[in-house]
Amino acid sequence: MRIAVLSGGIGGSRFIQGILAAVEPTDQVTVIANTADDITLFGLRVCPDLDTVMYTLSGGIDTARGWGRQDETWHAKEELERYGVDQTWFGLGDRDLATHVVRTMMLNRGAPLSEVTSALCERWAPPVHLLPMTDDVVETHIQTTLDDDKRWIHFQEFWIKHKAAIPVHAVDIRGAATARAAPGVVDAIAHADVVLIPPSNPVVSIGPIVAIGEIRDAVQSTSAPVVGASPIIGDSAVRGMANQLLDGLSIRVSAAGVAEFHGSRSAKGILDGWLVDESDASQVADVERLGIAARAVPLWMTDLDACRRMAQDALALAETVGRS
Amino acid sequence: MRIAVLSGGIGGSRFIQGILAAVEPTDQVTVIANTADDITLFGLRVCPDLDTVMYTLSGGIDTARGWGRQDETWHAKEELERYGVDQTWFGLGDRDLATHVVRTMMLNRGAPLSEVTSALCERWAPPVHLLPMTDDVVETHIQTTLDDDKRWIHFQEFWIKHKAAIPVHAVDIRGAATARAAPGVVDAIAHADVVLIPPSNPVVSIGPIVAIGEIRDAVQSTSAPVVGASPIIGDSAVRGMANQLLDGLSIRVSAAGVAEFHGSRSAKGILDGWLVDESDASQVADVERLGIAARAVPLWMTDLDACRRMAQDALALAETVGRS
Repeated sequence: MRIAVLSGGIGGSRFIQGILAAVEPTDQVTVIANTADDITLFGLRVCPDLDTVMYTLSGGIDTARGWGRQDETWHAKEELERYGVDQTWFGLGDRDLATHVVRTMMLNRGAPLSEVTSALCERWAPPVHLLPMTDDVVETHIQTTLDDDKRWIHFQEFWIKHKAAIPVHAVDIRGAATARAAPGVVDAIAHADVVLIPPSNPVVSIGPIVAIGEIRDAVQSTSAPVVGASPIIGDSAVRGMANQLLDGLSIRVSAAGVAEFHGSRSAKGILDGWLVDESDASQVADVERLGIAARAVPLWMTDLDACRRMAQDALALAETVGRS
Repeated sequence: MRIAVLSGGIGGSRFIQGILAAVEPTDQVTVIANTADDITLFGLRVCPDLDTVMYTLSGGIDTARGWGRQDETWHAKEELERYGVDQTWFGLGDRDLATHVVRTMMLNRGAPLSEVTSALCERWAPPVHLLPMTDDVVETHIQTTLDDDKRWIHFQEFWIKHKAAIPVHAVDIRGAATARAAPGVVDAIAHADVVLIPPSNPVVSIGPIVAIGEIRDAVQSTSAPVVGASPIIGDSAVRGMANQLLDGLSIRVSAAGVAEFHGSRSAKGILDGWLVDESDASQVADVERLGIAARAVPLWMTDLDACRRMAQDALALAETVGRS
């Protein structure tokens, strides 16, 4: 079986762990990671979602924190702070730093991000084919109000520095309109047996991936069923601080609200099927009215077994949708 | 009093500590540091001599090792090795790395090295005015034989990776012929009351500084006396692996041999005075025959007090020379 996954960082990685636990070793999993969270810090190109997937699937992640390297130290960051440089609000560990140094060195020599990602993965050897969504620079910027001043800031500044606790007036996936899909991305979707969408943030993780025309077209035209899982349980995000972001964009903070945001493939959206949490079973009918097959199943990714069952539920729903 | 010092790394830093201990707080010490040891590693610009001087004079150095930061960790370097990148033979600590990241970021934004050095020194506040010899890229390359292949390698590769234990056929101070002195360098030498040359490597520390035409001219034409201290005691270098380098260039490995290499100002060289170690007192006459005033004094920089006395001896010799 060939599975294509559109993924953000932490939630995506855990869901992918579930997929890997659910499928056979001979099944091929291609992960198309969001790169719109990427940011240049102190001249170094940082790709949080690519790295979270790579570290998580290869045993390098700090499992408690969910991001960055295990056995990490923070001495370079301490020193950067003492030099008084900007952007030290970003958590850049000493081990993690090496990844960004190698990546930046390769990018500056002219290698596209997909090639760099492949080179980094030679060391980590994650049990998936990991691709950036694009080799072009695409960055999510948030329009907010800071000090009574309405302005645009990088998503990471909004998310990490301001902990998403400032107004969201608009979101701009800068560069997405002209970006090309990275090599292998369109093929992976076109030739997949199933396309899965983890419970990642719809606006800043999944949104940017399908904001790239070639990828959106591929998702809309693939013969594979496309099934996602809600990142919202009840009225709040499973992880992180998505509520403010969704509220700010007038997206209903509910499983059905996110399904509506993504839309049905039959109506130029990206979904055939949608998993909602068992506690949101009452929303199944709402989702199905959108033309999206829905199932209520446990969506809390509390441990690997829960992630595995969730992936099995997504694959089962895909099979139903695919047959219909 | 205005003192200009032409300096390499470790030996220079210790000698400067001696100068600072010997002079009044109102005396101005300008350090013109060798930058031909500089190297770009993993896309980061590393300036070993500038940093050694900056760290040493500001309490940031690892005193036992003599280079790099105290309380250092090596996690980024470990990771770089695991990524299999080249050049991991260079000792790049996590704290130290931050200095190179900040420097590279500023250089890439177009700031000249002198401005970057000044910015880094804002944090460290060394009690001297620290200047790079030049804002241009000047790098020492060594012609050697590796695997039966005669070729040029960067000085750091020769020194650190190969521990100077490979043949030296020639030394090229690349870029020196066209390099300009950094802002402030020529003035500091021209308006100095005394110019001091620490017991630094003549070929790869002091040599590159005076290989820059404007600096050599300034040293040769300043009204200040120019006095140095021998980095050789007996028949070996006080520190490091200078012997192989000097041997390879057919420079006599002795206090008088180095004095001859630098030459007397009266004969288009750079020295008026030269300190040799008390154990080399027999060479005083040889040095003086070169037209260079010489004194035999203790040159082992065993502790700060020894460094202070050595600086006092250099200043005393300068006074004698200046009056003559």
